[in-house]
Amino acid sequence: MTNINNIIDYINGSNDFVVTSHISPDGDNIGSTLSMYYSLKKLGKNVCYVLDDQMPLNMQFLIEGVEILKSSECDMKDYTLISLDCGDRPRICVSDEIKDNAVKLICIDHHASNEAFGDLNYIDVDASSTCELMYNVLVRMSEVNNIDFIDAKVATALYTGLVTDTGNFAYSNTHASSFEMAKELLIKGAKKDTVIQNVFQSNPYNYYKLLGEALNTLDIVDGKVASISITKEMLKENAISFNDLDGITPYTRDIQGVEVGILIKEKKENEVKVSLRSKNYVNVSEIAKVFGGGGHVRASGCTIFDSVENAKAKVLEQVLKTI
Amino acid sequence: MTNINNIIDYINGSNDFVVTSHISPDGDNIGSTLSMYYSLKKLGKNVCYVLDDQMPLNMQFLIEGVEILKSSECDMKDYTLISLDCGDRPRICVSDEIKDNAVKLICIDHHASNEAFGDLNYIDVDASSTCELMYNVLVRMSEVNNIDFIDAKVATALYTGLVTDTGNFAYSNTHASSFEMAKELLIKGAKKDTVIQNVFQSNPYNYYKLLGEALNTLDIVDGKVASISITKEMLKENAISFNDLDGITPYTRDIQGVEVGILIKEKKENEVKVSLRSKNYVNVSEIAKVFGGGGHVRASGCTIFDSVENAKAKVLEQVLKTI
Ligand SMILES: [Mn+2]
Ligand SMILES: [Mn+2]
Repeated sequence: MTNINNIIDYINGSNDFVVTSHISPDGDNIGSTLSMYYSLKKLGKNVCYVLDDQMPLNMQFLIEGVEILKSSECDMKDYTLISLDCGDRPRICVSDEIKDNAVKLICIDHHASNEAFGDLNYIDVDASSTCELMYNVLVRMSEVNNIDFIDAKVATALYTGLVTDTGNFAYSNTHASSFEMAKELLIKGAKKDTVIQNVFQSNPYNYYKLLGEALNTLDIVDGKVASISITKEMLKENAISFNDLDGITPYTRDIQGVEVGILIKEKKENEVKVSLRSKNYVNVSEIAKVFGGGGHVRASGCTIFDSVENAKAKVLEQVLKTI
Repeated sequence: MTNINNIIDYINGSNDFVVTSHISPDGDNIGSTLSMYYSLKKLGKNVCYVLDDQMPLNMQFLIEGVEILKSSECDMKDYTLISLDCGDRPRICVSDEIKDNAVKLICIDHHASNEAFGDLNYIDVDASSTCELMYNVLVRMSEVNNIDFIDAKVATALYTGLVTDTGNFAYSNTHASSFEMAKELLIKGAKKDTVIQNVFQSNPYNYYKLLGEALNTLDIVDGKVASISITKEMLKENAISFNDLDGITPYTRDIQGVEVGILIKEKKENEVKVSLRSKNYVNVSEIAKVFGGGGHVRASGCTIFDSVENAKAKVLEQVLKTI
C-alpha cells in the first residue's frame, strides 16, 4: 500500500490533474474532492473538477462559485486522475475516456470493499471518512511544502464530509482522531454552523408535516418489528419527493426493543419501495433478497410490485421468520 | 469570580457534601452531578446525591446502581452543597431546608442567567455544558491530587452531558475545546455508542406516536417562527412523562427558514412550560426573561401560568417583536 508521502511526492512532481468521486454525490464525496481541488490550485497546478452527476440541494453552499465540469467539457491532456471516496473503478463518476486516458490513477478512500484499484493508493477502511484521510494528507502536505493548505474553505469542506459520514459524530466509525480533526478544523476556521444548518437543519416545513403523518402510521409487531408506511398521496399533499425520504428510515429502527425497522414507500400504483434496517442480529439483506433486492446486513432494500398493504404484509411475514 | 483552584482547595479541606442539580433533570444535569459524586467518593468524602425529581427514562443507563436520595432521606449535617448545571437558587432541586442548612454553597454552571449565587462559583457562560466545566475541574483536580478522576465511568457521564447540551455537537455552543474534551473522554474509555443508543436511539414506541401527534400541531408563522404544542392529554394517552420531551424541541427550529422554534408543553391545568430555540440571531434568553425564565442565547425556557393556547399567543407575540 502506498503511503501518504509517495502520493505527496507524486503530486509535487506533476502538473495536470482531474479530481473526482463516486456517483450519487454526498458530503464526503464533495468535501474530499473539494479539499484536494483547492489544495492543487494553491500549489499552482492545472486542475479540473469533473463529476457527471447532479449535486444534492443541501450541498450547494459548499460548491458555490466552484467550476464543476461534465466529462465532455474537460479537455485536459496527460493528466493524473485523483479518485476520492470511491470504492471501485466503475463507480468513478467520469466517462470511461477520462478514466482510460489518465497517465496515473490516485485512489484515496475508506470503503471496506476497496481493492486498491489505483496506481497509488491511500486506503484506510477504519477511517471515519475520506475527508479524514484528506485531512491527514493535507497536514503532511503542509509540512512538506511549507504552505498551510487547510484554510477556512478547505476546513469547511473537510468538516462537511466528516459530519455526513459519521452522522454528526453519532456512528461507531467516530474515533478519537475524528474529534482531534474536528477540533483542528474549527481552529482553522471551518464554518461549523453553516455546515450543520445546511446539511441537517434545512428540511422544509412540509417535510416535518409529512414526518408527522408518517409517524401516525407507525406500527409495531411483537415489540421487535416496526414499520412506517408512506403513500404517494402523502407525498403529493406535502409536495415532498420520493427521493427525500431517506431521513425517515431510522425512525423505524431507533425504538426501544425494536430489532428490525421497515419503511414502506409507495412510488406509484402497485410499486412499493421497501427499506429495511436492523439493530443487532437480523441480516436484512437476506430478507431483501427474497424480493429480488439486496444491500448490507444492517441496511437493505427491495421493490415489491403490489399495494402498500400487501407489500407490508409480505415483508412482515418474512421478517417475523427471522426474529 | 472564584477560580477552579479555590474550589479544589475547598473540596480537599472538607468532608461532607450534598451534590445536586436543577429540576427537570437532563443529560448535563445528571452527567455533571454524577462526575462530581464519583470523584468525591474517590477522594473518600461523605457524599449524598439528592434530587427531588423523576429521572428521564433515557438516562437510566447512567444512574444504574447509583443511590439518588430525596431531600427527606438525606440526614447529612454540616455539609457543603454543590449545585451543578443550575442557573439560580430557586431551581436547585432539593428542599429549602437542605439549601438553607448548607455551611457553604458551591456553584458550577454555564447558564447565561447565572448571577454567581454560590459562595464559591465556577461559571462560564460560553462553555458547551456544565460537564465541560466539570471536565476542567477534574483535569485540574487530577493534577493537584495525583489521582486520575476521569475513569471510564466518569468519562461516560461527562460525555453524556456534552452530547445532550450540544445536540451531539450540532449546536453553536460546540467549541474546539468541546472536541478536545470528546477526544480525551474517548481515550479515557467513555462508552460513546452506549450513550448514543440510550440517549438518542432508545425512545419507546409511544414516544414516536406522541412525536407524530406533536408534529401534527406544527405551526409556522411568517416562515420564521415554528411551534409545537403538547397537551397533558397527549402525554397521558401515550403514557409519556413530561420530563421525556427534550428531544422534541429541535423539531421546532430545524426547519428551512425558521429562526425561532417554540415547544409548548402543558404540565398541568394552566401551567405551561415553554422551550425556546433560535438558529442565528434572536436572543431567546431575553424572551424567556419576559416570562420570568432564562437560559442561553440560543436555548432557553420559561413557565407561563395560563392555557396552552394563551401561552402560545403570549410567547409568539414576544418572539415576533424580535424577528
Ligand atoms: Mn465516505
Ligand atoms: Mn447544561
